Amino acid sequence: MAEPIYTYNQLRDFSHAIFKRIGCPEDQSTLATNVLLDADLRGIDSHGIARLSGYVRLWEAKRVNATPNVRIVHESPSTAVVDGDSGLGLVVAPKAMEIAIEKARVAGTGWVAVKNSNHFGIAGHHAMMALKHDMIGMAMTNASPLVAPTFSVERLLGTNPICVAIPANKQPAFVADFATTTAANGKLEILQRKNKEAPLGWIQKKNGDPSTNAHELKDGGALIPLGSDREHGSHKGYCLGAWVDIFSAVLSGANYGPWVPPFVAFLNPPADPVGEGIGHFLGAMRVDAFRPADEFKDHMDNWITRFRSAKTIDGQEKVLVPGDPERETSIERLKNGIPLNEKVVEDLTELGKKFSLSL
Amino acid sequence: MAEPIYTYNQLRDFSHAIFKRIGCPEDQSTLATNVLLDADLRGIDSHGIARLSGYVRLWEAKRVNATPNVRIVHESPSTAVVDGDSGLGLVVAPKAMEIAIEKARVAGTGWVAVKNSNHFGIAGHHAMMALKHDMIGMAMTNASPLVAPTFSVERLLGTNPICVAIPANKQPAFVADFATTTAANGKLEILQRKNKEAPLGWIQKKNGDPSTNAHELKDGGALIPLGSDREHGSHKGYCLGAWVDIFSAVLSGANYGPWVPPFVAFLNPPADPVGEGIGHFLGAMRVDAFRPADEFKDHMDNWITRFRSAKTIDGQEKVLVPGDPERETSIERLKNGIPLNEKVVEDLTELGKKFSLSL
Repeated sequence: MAEPIYTYNQLRDFSHAIFKRIGCPEDQSTLATNVLLDADLRGIDSHGIARLSGYVRLWEAKRVNATPNVRIVHESPSTAVVDGDSGLGLVVAPKAMEIAIEKARVAGTGWVAVKNSNHFGIAGHHAMMALKHDMIGMAMTNASPLVAPTFSVERLLGTNPICVAIPANKQPAFVADFATTTAANGKLEILQRKNKEAPLGWIQKKNGDPSTNAHELKDGGALIPLGSDREHGSHKGYCLGAWVDIFSAVLSGANYGPWVPPFVAFLNPPADPVGEGIGHFLGAMRVDAFRPADEFKDHMDNWITRFRSAKTIDGQEKVLVPGDPERETSIERLKNGIPLNEKVVEDLTELGKKFSLSL
Repeated sequence: MAEPIYTYNQLRDFSHAIFKRIGCPEDQSTLATNVLLDADLRGIDSHGIARLSGYVRLWEAKRVNATPNVRIVHESPSTAVVDGDSGLGLVVAPKAMEIAIEKARVAGTGWVAVKNSNHFGIAGHHAMMALKHDMIGMAMTNASPLVAPTFSVERLLGTNPICVAIPANKQPAFVADFATTTAANGKLEILQRKNKEAPLGWIQKKNGDPSTNAHELKDGGALIPLGSDREHGSHKGYCLGAWVDIFSAVLSGANYGPWVPPFVAFLNPPADPVGEGIGHFLGAMRVDAFRPADEFKDHMDNWITRFRSAKTIDGQEKVLVPGDPERETSIERLKNGIPLNEKVVEDLTELGKKFSLSL
């Protein structure tokens, strides 16, 4: 059965109204909605409006502050630490990215570590904010511990995504946005809803044995770092996830590793926190702090064109440039609407009732 | 048969003498030797003294300048572009890293893109230069195109390594240093010498089919990005390799992608270069540009201790922290010497004869 389809504007208005109802100011409701729906547009359904009720439950549990005072608590010419004041990451992260961009204007680059925040939606949104200023944008965040480092049975890291967004001239920007695990948790959720098996190499059992059960995490299993096993470089995926964790949280003063508070409101944060909230790390580099922007962007056009026109393996249509699939989905969904899984529709309908709103 | 063992000092003196013989100034011969032998100490044999004759052949082919004028050609408070003047990467990269460290002292962070350079040895050496200044160090470089992006049969990227080095207090530093492919080329070379098969997922045939033949690259095959195949995230490894390529070469004005000149002197550089030499990207971030250094380093101790003491999968001794294996090898080899493969010994003996030096 085909999934019900909603227009961008329908979902935007609903999300905006919900954020207003929990007490977010008008401008922050707009900002949070833009970030959230960017995920739906770009086809990263797990990070979009499907999470709206999760944010509301965190607010109900008094773990989200709807009127945060997002502020710089430490800085140097090219760096800052931002205290998110327990605000929505959807609001805190773009505000922190603005600070990174301002720093880059003056110092060439700007790097902002954020503490005391919550889940920030897709990394891509924040990194891409830099593009229109002819800057390279970077965004990373730590997240609830679901990932076992190589050789560990304990879940010590989140899926800790990284995004790097690089402007081009005539070509669309290069946007690499990916979880540092073999498969993002959202891909596993899709298999769970369809009751399908996962490929070997995505998850492990409670004792560390390989598993294809998409529900394994409920039994104490774990996601696996990019690389899948030691022989195929899972220690490198573990390095990447660890790097994101340390930049996001040890630099900022947020919780790291197994101390990161869970996204789901029904689980309590650890009783012995090592910092405040979750952490992000955002960066902006002015291209012309390295070479003239037009020169750089022309070479990016050349890079992109060369890679996209590479000879493919038989049966594959083309070699993709990072950002191609999400951009195409975005164009398609703006035009034809955004399909929502029926469980997501049920969840949003319930959420609407609570606040006397209809989807 | 056991491999012959040399002391660090023996190899150091030999390497230093060779660099002097090709015309490198005293201080640069020392610097290049330090960088080169750091690879041997840390167990990354493919990047150490085994490459010495390769550097000499590049010099013979007039592709390496033994007396380079390494200089800043563009800068902002937190950035610089450095022209390596065709020098040894072993000399150019540490000089560029010093500039990054100086920038970080003043601006909080320093980021240096390098063009017109050559192979820089192990990324770890350069990134770790930041540690003693209570800074985080980063180093990346592009390299000869041996890697096929996901769905491509063409080799468009190098093994493009990344290193992130992060200081701790009582614990040794966190040092993640890895190629962005499933397996580094050096690992393949070990299998080639032993005439062994490679695991599936490391390499592909000329037509893109999976292969276990360690000699496949000689027949037009390619290394595969970290992730091994699309289902296990090879597009993410491709994103990483592409990111390194763009930061190292498009930002700096070096050659990128398939235009990167080959390390081996018997292959000519492409006739239609898009930049100068190969490129690196080096970064330093002052920890106290984010929070007091002792506070940060104490939390790093806590991070490291927690991860190292994680419960392991049955049969595994412990969960490693990035940098643990290399540090242990380094201590062991400083004490007991450095084993060299007999083909490497033959090669170095020949090299010595050419310059009237004995190993």
